[in-house]
Amino acid sequence: MADARPSLSTADSTATDTGVTTGPISGSRKVYREVGDLRVPVRRIELSNGEHLDVYDTSGPYTDDTATIDVHEGLPETRADWSGEHRTQLAWAKAGVITREMEFVAAREDLPAELVRDEIARGRAVLPANRRHPESEPMIIGKKFLVKVNANIGNSAVTSSVEEEVEKMVWAARWGADTIMDLSTGKRIHETRERILRNSPVPVGTVPIYQALEKVNGDPAQLTWEIYRDTVIEQCEQGVDYMTVHAGVLLRYVPLTAQRVTGIVSRGGSIMAAWCLAHHRESFLYTHFSELCEILRDYDVTFSLGDGLRPGSIADANDRAQFAELETLGELTRIAREHDVQVMIEGPGHVPMHKIAENVRLEEELCDEAPFYTLGPLTTDIAPAYDHITSGIGAAMIAQAGTAMLCYVTPKEHLGLPDRDDVKTGVITYKIAAHAGDLAKGHPRAQEWDDALSKARFEFRWTDQFHLALDPDTAKAYHDQTLPAEPAKTAHFCSMCGPKFCSMKITQDVRRYAEERGLTSVEAIEEGMREKSEEFTGSGGEVYLPIVG
Amino acid sequence: MADARPSLSTADSTATDTGVTTGPISGSRKVYREVGDLRVPVRRIELSNGEHLDVYDTSGPYTDDTATIDVHEGLPETRADWSGEHRTQLAWAKAGVITREMEFVAAREDLPAELVRDEIARGRAVLPANRRHPESEPMIIGKKFLVKVNANIGNSAVTSSVEEEVEKMVWAARWGADTIMDLSTGKRIHETRERILRNSPVPVGTVPIYQALEKVNGDPAQLTWEIYRDTVIEQCEQGVDYMTVHAGVLLRYVPLTAQRVTGIVSRGGSIMAAWCLAHHRESFLYTHFSELCEILRDYDVTFSLGDGLRPGSIADANDRAQFAELETLGELTRIAREHDVQVMIEGPGHVPMHKIAENVRLEEELCDEAPFYTLGPLTTDIAPAYDHITSGIGAAMIAQAGTAMLCYVTPKEHLGLPDRDDVKTGVITYKIAAHAGDLAKGHPRAQEWDDALSKARFEFRWTDQFHLALDPDTAKAYHDQTLPAEPAKTAHFCSMCGPKFCSMKITQDVRRYAEERGLTSVEAIEEGMREKSEEFTGSGGEVYLPIVG
Repeated sequence: MADARPSLSTADSTATDTGVTTGPISGSRKVYREVGDLRVPVRRIELSNGEHLDVYDTSGPYTDDTATIDVHEGLPETRADWSGEHRTQLAWAKAGVITREMEFVAAREDLPAELVRDEIARGRAVLPANRRHPESEPMIIGKKFLVKVNANIGNSAVTSSVEEEVEKMVWAARWGADTIMDLSTGKRIHETRERILRNSPVPVGTVPIYQALEKVNGDPAQLTWEIYRDTVIEQCEQGVDYMTVHAGVLLRYVPLTAQRVTGIVSRGGSIMAAWCLAHHRESFLYTHFSELCEILRDYDVTFSLGDGLRPGSIADANDRAQFAELETLGELTRIAREHDVQVMIEGPGHVPMHKIAENVRLEEELCDEAPFYTLGPLTTDIAPAYDHITSGIGAAMIAQAGTAMLCYVTPKEHLGLPDRDDVKTGVITYKIAAHAGDLAKGHPRAQEWDDALSKARFEFRWTDQFHLALDPDTAKAYHDQTLPAEPAKTAHFCSMCGPKFCSMKITQDVRRYAEERGLTSVEAIEEGMREKSEEFTGSGGEVYLPIVG
Repeated sequence: MADARPSLSTADSTATDTGVTTGPISGSRKVYREVGDLRVPVRRIELSNGEHLDVYDTSGPYTDDTATIDVHEGLPETRADWSGEHRTQLAWAKAGVITREMEFVAAREDLPAELVRDEIARGRAVLPANRRHPESEPMIIGKKFLVKVNANIGNSAVTSSVEEEVEKMVWAARWGADTIMDLSTGKRIHETRERILRNSPVPVGTVPIYQALEKVNGDPAQLTWEIYRDTVIEQCEQGVDYMTVHAGVLLRYVPLTAQRVTGIVSRGGSIMAAWCLAHHRESFLYTHFSELCEILRDYDVTFSLGDGLRPGSIADANDRAQFAELETLGELTRIAREHDVQVMIEGPGHVPMHKIAENVRLEEELCDEAPFYTLGPLTTDIAPAYDHITSGIGAAMIAQAGTAMLCYVTPKEHLGLPDRDDVKTGVITYKIAAHAGDLAKGHPRAQEWDDALSKARFEFRWTDQFHLALDPDTAKAYHDQTLPAEPAKTAHFCSMCGPKFCSMKITQDVRRYAEERGLTSVEAIEEGMREKSEEFTGSGGEVYLPIVG
């Protein structure tokens, strides 16, 4: 069977002549809930017993059978007339106003709009929605809401094209990415981003320093505040919803990384460290931070304060460099909020399990509970090619501890640029981590999904089980590898145990037997045993209870 | 690139004409450490900088270039003359005697033999080594030692052959399985097990009730103590090292499962529940437990007390049925120990993250710290086809909490019988979980491996990085997908970020620059900044610090 392993890409999804994947996920269809004059998308999973389960839907119009997709036209500008005055969501929230974006988000999360407003006003949640990205569907990032997942895409100088990156965006959103980051560092950066933004139903994040560095031919020392500022404005104008800014990498923190096993592993962090040392001056991101706030405020772009000194190995986790920077990020958080700019804080990286909780605790303490947005963390360094898993473990744990958004890691991490299959594996792995986090935090609706799937499993509704899976296509393909025939879809077993050894089948037999005989309570059982026992004793039979040690 | 994804099977390993995979793992070679007259195997990873790293080796002679493998002959009976009197490892340990098996294990774990003896004597560790399985290399399961991984193999009535199962055993041990369980329920059960045992360098576990059920044509009601006992003796004679016995499924616990979402999901548990109800009598495994102890003692077979009522869904986790059974397992643990029989306790199953720690706490309390051996647990039900990941998260966390051995889950869980690729994915995923657990528990030598890999990564020793990976073949294949050429193996970048954006390259440049200029301490940096600042002030330049909120 070694060669029969199905590709993780799906046979069901259709690459249309627009070059992107369209059509519903197997067994689901797009439904819009009308909330006032808002149309809030959900993915409805129809079940064979007449029930259905509605789940949170990030996929945008691409999974809507009735939508017309033209990547050259871009998506409809649904939010074009939503914005009133030029005020940020944070400013409105502080003023006590519930915006349409907040209403939309509240409906998506099935939570009160007032909670949404309050969490944003406190800075404990962000709603990243650049006015110039009216194609996006509003979503919220904060620890009281569903844990979110970001997928990094973008080309490098070595590989990939604009078309591939647009498809990766659609593909990532299809499988559940709540936001995407375009980290392109190769050719046609502006054009790639434009095509992604005009077609993206989810908020788009970037790291502007990458494009700025391209403008100076890759020499960090040649960077200036002016080049950086103009790049930020260019990206704000295009509609980028949140930007990673490594403004916490201060000159005096650079020596703290000297003894590390892996030094500075953040690209932005290493660029800024190089600049600071070359000029022997404080980072222009730090010294010009207030100007940056003013620019981002004008578009309502959200800060994602980057952890440029995050640990890149188990050995470097939770060290002085990392937490020194975090303190500075706290300082910058307060400045941004004074400017009514929304802020989230990026987190590590590589962290062994016993050091994970401290990251969340310190972030909340130092950054006044700004939403935490972490990369993994990877819980060991020894498994390149499986870092979606080493990091999925850490991601689930840090989500449980209160992280609001998880940046995925793909199997290609440390090895190469992820392709479309890697993107899917990364997203599904992180949806697992996020959902495990939702369950562990006791999110009121999270367990519905698990219960629906387990019920289908117990009742041998195989097709429902596939459709309720995060990845219906792969679940079905794996099942069909050994039992492809149609009757197996209603069989009371699978090839794992075969017909005689299926515990669920035996359990159902047991339940039926017990019900027919009234043996459905401990009392009934004990009464029956007492009678049996008396029979035995009366007949001189061996007493089988209690056992003799 | 969608179709270029390399198979998870390796190109390097050689399927010899013996039908099993032989030859070293890429970049490693088998080395034996001489400890007294014992030869203790390690896997030596040779590095390009002249250093090497020795890691724990489960793979047996199959990865020894100098060994002759003949699966019809079986492995050499290395331990044939080790056993003295018929006494169990537990009995020797209680008597204060360090056996050769204990010495071997101490050398493997690099820990004092007296600690090994003491942990076994307390019942806090087990050394499963049936006298009739002299081909096995002794290993220890206990929370003070490296976290272990078990791989389930075995055919079902639907699929697989003897040859395939022997290769799965060799394959699982190759990638790091510390024990395997043969869960065959299909044809030729005895013969399959015989071939596995004679060729297995790792301890082999079974669930005797499966074969007993085959003997009565799959009807649980037809089972008797005598049929079961004879099956156990048959398997003890063959050399099985540990046996799962679901003796804690009591008649009165069955109704506790009636309201569950997924009832009884353990095969053994459901079989025994069916038997108890059909006869309305207490389980013969419970009533005859002392006799069972006497049989296992004669061969030094270890009990793995099965959790027949483990939860099979998030909804059923930590319920009354589960913990009622655990209490009975505690009672049975004490009886087994009185008979000098070693015991470990099996655990769940499906458990959300916030309920994981309680499982370990209760197991230790109720079962006097007998080693805990858990299946996952799966932290959500919604991702069939990815249950190696849903459960890898739970496995890492429960290992951190003190679980001694993790039973792997493969991507095929709930869907079909795992093939060879699934076995590898399952084992590697669980090695990650186990190692993450070792790191989090502060195992003295665990971090060496992470440090060696991260150092290789930082120094762009790509080939060393691959060789230090848990799965060198897949790591290299992923890297080579985009940069296959030989020069890329020494390049200071990969396709993920391209040459200009590699943070590690920039960091090295930064370090060199800083060292050349003496900017290697916070003090030096601050002194430099003060001078610069004075220059600026003197020249009427703008003061760039502090920033203005």
